Amino acid sequence: MWFAQTIFEYMQTWDQLFLDVNIATMCSGSTPYGAISNGALAILDKRIAWVGPESGLPSYDAKTVHRLDGRWLTPALIDCHTHLVFGGDRAMEFEQRLNGVTYEEISRAGGGIRSTVRSTRNASQSELLESAIDRVATLMREGVATVEVKSGYGLDRTTEITMLEVAKELEQNCSASIVKTFLGAHAIPEEFQYDTDSYIDFVIDEVLPEAFERQLVDAVDAYCETIAFSSPQIAKFFEKAKSLDIDVKLHADQLSDCGGAELAARFNALSADHLEYTTVTGVEALASSGTVAVLLPGPFLILGETQLPPIDELRSNSVPIAIATDCNPGSSPLCSIRLAMNLATSLFKLTPEECLAGVTRNAAQALGLLNDRGTLETGKRADLVEWNISHPRELTYWAGINQIHRLFINGELVD
Amino acid sequence: MWFAQTIFEYMQTWDQLFLDVNIATMCSGSTPYGAISNGALAILDKRIAWVGPESGLPSYDAKTVHRLDGRWLTPALIDCHTHLVFGGDRAMEFEQRLNGVTYEEISRAGGGIRSTVRSTRNASQSELLESAIDRVATLMREGVATVEVKSGYGLDRTTEITMLEVAKELEQNCSASIVKTFLGAHAIPEEFQYDTDSYIDFVIDEVLPEAFERQLVDAVDAYCETIAFSSPQIAKFFEKAKSLDIDVKLHADQLSDCGGAELAARFNALSADHLEYTTVTGVEALASSGTVAVLLPGPFLILGETQLPPIDELRSNSVPIAIATDCNPGSSPLCSIRLAMNLATSLFKLTPEECLAGVTRNAAQALGLLNDRGTLETGKRADLVEWNISHPRELTYWAGINQIHRLFINGELVD
Repeated sequence: MWFAQTIFEYMQTWDQLFLDVNIATMCSGSTPYGAISNGALAILDKRIAWVGPESGLPSYDAKTVHRLDGRWLTPALIDCHTHLVFGGDRAMEFEQRLNGVTYEEISRAGGGIRSTVRSTRNASQSELLESAIDRVATLMREGVATVEVKSGYGLDRTTEITMLEVAKELEQNCSASIVKTFLGAHAIPEEFQYDTDSYIDFVIDEVLPEAFERQLVDAVDAYCETIAFSSPQIAKFFEKAKSLDIDVKLHADQLSDCGGAELAARFNALSADHLEYTTVTGVEALASSGTVAVLLPGPFLILGETQLPPIDELRSNSVPIAIATDCNPGSSPLCSIRLAMNLATSLFKLTPEECLAGVTRNAAQALGLLNDRGTLETGKRADLVEWNISHPRELTYWAGINQIHRLFINGELVD
Repeated sequence: MWFAQTIFEYMQTWDQLFLDVNIATMCSGSTPYGAISNGALAILDKRIAWVGPESGLPSYDAKTVHRLDGRWLTPALIDCHTHLVFGGDRAMEFEQRLNGVTYEEISRAGGGIRSTVRSTRNASQSELLESAIDRVATLMREGVATVEVKSGYGLDRTTEITMLEVAKELEQNCSASIVKTFLGAHAIPEEFQYDTDSYIDFVIDEVLPEAFERQLVDAVDAYCETIAFSSPQIAKFFEKAKSLDIDVKLHADQLSDCGGAELAARFNALSADHLEYTTVTGVEALASSGTVAVLLPGPFLILGETQLPPIDELRSNSVPIAIATDCNPGSSPLCSIRLAMNLATSLFKLTPEECLAGVTRNAAQALGLLNDRGTLETGKRADLVEWNISHPRELTYWAGINQIHRLFINGELVD
């Protein structure tokens, strides 16, 4: 009786338990991939309640036991940089370019990002939602549970708000978790093309406060580039965001060294994204501010870029590297996080472990969510993928093969 | 009565009829993509019985009528160069290379193609079949109906024959059509490493005759390269093949200009594949022999090649260009024809129409099957894909999105 009571007191009670499984926890600093062979993982109340070698399991009672026949579990994947809410597409322009029409000719004919702005403004909210749901569903089929979604194709008050509302509705329509980023300073709208400062003031004074008020802003983002906004303009925008206690992130140094990394670091940005032209000074700034470097092989490939981001400097300065699709209709019509991982090996020579960390642990950090997800650790959200693989390196090795077995989000199996 | 009889006499009777459809016939020389808006396509006895604008339909009776709501039909896709039967994988080696281990170190440790040869020799026929079925199924999910499969990881009599038998069994296990290529001269096996001539004689005198006798050879292939076989060795092999009335094809000029294109042309090869280092003279030779140029963006990307195949010369000499996955465990762990198309735009600057022709019409020609499939024309096999797209250019524009609606092979819907 006394003995039974002790057992009872010490017995763990779980909702779900995974056994006969290999686990890539993606916790850093231990084994490669944070791997645990012959592991076990328990879920209670949608959180990871226990993870470790099966031999170390305490006494337990579990409502559901999954035996995985040696399959692997990893954290669910995270796409931390997308523009997947948009109207229209740019397939015709894509074809024209390959048939020799220049960017300039396309731009003069109303193409480029302005054509997406027009199509997005003209689309209804339900049209935007419907097409975005398809894209999120496509990502989820590869094991993605968290998707960052940016505004930035409205560039007017109504459409920017609409895009963020669509992002919010996405979460209600998909089981994925959606992170909403207000990218008001993405491009210069035609109405303001000769007065960029006024556009920034408009974003600061009118759009951001309304979006914030409506709780549609998890972070703000801007595009620092000669063809977009200057450092001082973005600094003004970021100051406003910081005054509202909103995190910032930045499209930095994609086409030229604009001091984007330094600007991002100055505001302790969550992430600085692209970074092809970032210098050593910029990398050191990111290191000191704890900013994640988000690398985007999609636009690198599609734009035919040859200037590589400063990978070795990021490594030697211990800047966490994330990878994302940058899914968008212009520079990255890519809706596959697995392909982004694969391209990051071919184009950037990242290792398979860096690629997987780039879409789990470091992607979570890029969204300010590392305490909540991104690794398989006790207390974190039970977002996990079960894979038909014999080693996690296979997730970057194969292109075009989806070895997913099951995706769990918040402890729930996604059909 | 007389009137009714006339109607009856002229009325077409079909098994299936597709209406309310746009058709990319991929016939050359007419509209881009050989496109027919508001078209109709009829199937009788597994063949295309009628195709044209719906307005031109004759009187008909059809057992099944499919209304496609404006979706598109294209020929089913063809992957005309794969090595998808193999044992083991090379994921560890892939990871080692990205961690800085050199090719030489990997090779000295028994890695590279020799490791696949070992794994393939050690695998049972059913293991080889099972893994190959998965890869063919993956290709079929993207609309592929015809897959070329090469031997070449056995390099001994038994295993080469086994690989070709697996290719034959694949066809019995999948609804896709499998084209079997004997690639005996793929690499130099360890047993013959100091006597390549004897290996070629062994292939010519023992393996090819047996494979041919067993009806396992639709064509032969060889690898012409400094690290593989010389022009004279391959010429001897091709002469034997021609004496048996077997078509030839060649891995040509992938890593250096070995005169591979010229060699292929001399034997009126169906195709010459890779071609990164082919010169203008080689291209002119291909043009005069009617040989198809098969371009392989997978290994180009994965090996970090920078020398582009002579695209402009191929175009100006009207050499048909096909595209394939080269699916293999070493230089192209790529099992997606759609991704091969997409990469051919980014890496080779092929147009979307060239890419689609490259996996339909020209891929059929590369397999000697153009009279039977590869375009949507009366008399051809009813191999077709129904797509959820508004224009066929979208098939190369998007990476990672599979817009397939239905695949028909030989007139039968594939589940």
